[in-house]
Amino acid sequence: MSDPIRIVEVGPRDGLQNEKTPIATETKLAFIAALAAAGIREVEATSFVSPKWIPQLADANDLWRQLPTGPLYSALVPNLAGLERALSVGVERMALFTAASDAFTERNIRMTVDQSLTVFAEVASRFRQAKPNGWIRGYVSTAFECPYAGRIPISQVIEVTGRLIDIGVNEVSIGDTIGVAAPIEVRGLTTALLREFPSERIAMHFHDTNGLAVANVVEAIDRGIRCFDASAGGLGGCPYAPGASGNLATEDLVYLLERSGWHTGIDLDELSRASLIVLEALGRPPAAKAQVAQLASASGTSPT
Amino acid sequence: MSDPIRIVEVGPRDGLQNEKTPIATETKLAFIAALAAAGIREVEATSFVSPKWIPQLADANDLWRQLPTGPLYSALVPNLAGLERALSVGVERMALFTAASDAFTERNIRMTVDQSLTVFAEVASRFRQAKPNGWIRGYVSTAFECPYAGRIPISQVIEVTGRLIDIGVNEVSIGDTIGVAAPIEVRGLTTALLREFPSERIAMHFHDTNGLAVANVVEAIDRGIRCFDASAGGLGGCPYAPGASGNLATEDLVYLLERSGWHTGIDLDELSRASLIVLEALGRPPAAKAQVAQLASASGTSPT
Repeated sequence: MSDPIRIVEVGPRDGLQNEKTPIATETKLAFIAALAAAGIREVEATSFVSPKWIPQLADANDLWRQLPTGPLYSALVPNLAGLERALSVGVERMALFTAASDAFTERNIRMTVDQSLTVFAEVASRFRQAKPNGWIRGYVSTAFECPYAGRIPISQVIEVTGRLIDIGVNEVSIGDTIGVAAPIEVRGLTTALLREFPSERIAMHFHDTNGLAVANVVEAIDRGIRCFDASAGGLGGCPYAPGASGNLATEDLVYLLERSGWHTGIDLDELSRASLIVLEALGRPPAAKAQVAQLASASGTSPT
Repeated sequence: MSDPIRIVEVGPRDGLQNEKTPIATETKLAFIAALAAAGIREVEATSFVSPKWIPQLADANDLWRQLPTGPLYSALVPNLAGLERALSVGVERMALFTAASDAFTERNIRMTVDQSLTVFAEVASRFRQAKPNGWIRGYVSTAFECPYAGRIPISQVIEVTGRLIDIGVNEVSIGDTIGVAAPIEVRGLTTALLREFPSERIAMHFHDTNGLAVANVVEAIDRGIRCFDASAGGLGGCPYAPGASGNLATEDLVYLLERSGWHTGIDLDELSRASLIVLEALGRPPAAKAQVAQLASASGTSPT
């Protein structure tokens, strides 16, 4: 196998952001510690968005100060105010969140894509003044389809990705936000992206709303993508199809990779237990497939 | 897109066989009628195994006589006694169930693979005397890995498949019974199978225990496989990892195919509702990903 595959764990941010029940800071920290112990090396730990919008992540400053050592931690930063908070606690890896669709950004962050990039250009510039060696990720969500605007032309994704690179991001995470894309679409978009940008700059963020996330990862790996976002336990539903699945479960991703011969350095058993502490607080049993299978086999209720 | 893809719905047999709560015959019939109305064209409706072993399917004769017209129906036949029952109600499409692993068949049907093939040769011969134009499917389960014997050599699968073809089956369904295989293994086994046997003779039966079933279907389609088994609502858990997922959900398969440009002739919305009648009897909410997403969007709780 060629270049190693990076996994960016987004459960603490993207997962918890999309769970209605607020989770106590201590619980989040225990969750993150368990992820680190399982071998997770990159964690998107929180967002410095205003608590007015995302109360579930209001404890960002507090959480950041107590993060267990080990993983590389990043945080979403929506604007200059968020940046000031982030810098005040020493954030050196941040993420800027936009989309390929104006309809989506207008509803989510009350700006067009263009306006968001103008804001982010300034955020990125200020960030780099404070942290010359800082790392910035840009998110392009609704890269395949927007719940309001429908299918998104590949050229639109290429353009937004290029604008993010221009303002100085190190990497762009391309997202199937509503979990509708099939592998053939991943093939098309990824091929086009990798004509324009080196693979080290591109990550992919699949949602499992219709059960295709793992298949999409397989296609993306075949095209040369080497970084994937996932959420332990599949935390974080789909705001566009209530009750439906959201993020790709990290357990499913790790199972795929390990079974296929990629060494992740992640212990699937420990990983499968990490989100239990959050699920318990949410009052839900585990539901991610490889997680449930792992817990069942570990409990000795299967013959192997 | 080339040759159409066949879907064999195994929920009424494989699904219900693996659900502990017995379902009333009327409920099964309503389920099957809903599947037919959704566009499902092939249904494995029941098994003529002794009620002593599988009480959930004890109503096979009764059920068979009342099946709604439309789909092609098949049934599992374990031995000559089961064959007599099947012929008495006019079964013309039957399935014989063996495995690539002696350890598995010994625990499941109390015979080695070889012994099972000897029995099946006689069952097939008697069947064809009664039904010269009858259709026979052979199942090779544990084709990738056996819960007792571990990984299965490709040559072993080729051999059992060949023996089934020799005794007169029309098609062989190759199964990842414990849902552990990754696409790279599907590539290897399918390539080897299609060197020996024409694609019209090979179907594949994936389990979603670790979330890889759809990815495995994608790989198999790329290799030339054109027939897949699935279970509406993902009915039927995994006896080897209690609580874990089992059969590939038909909804996930149909979503993949339709989104990828294959015309299935199946209405995903109607299909997503079909298993609700069984799930209600089982006291469970729907859990198959594309099913849940479809029901959520149909209920108007999403923006699209």
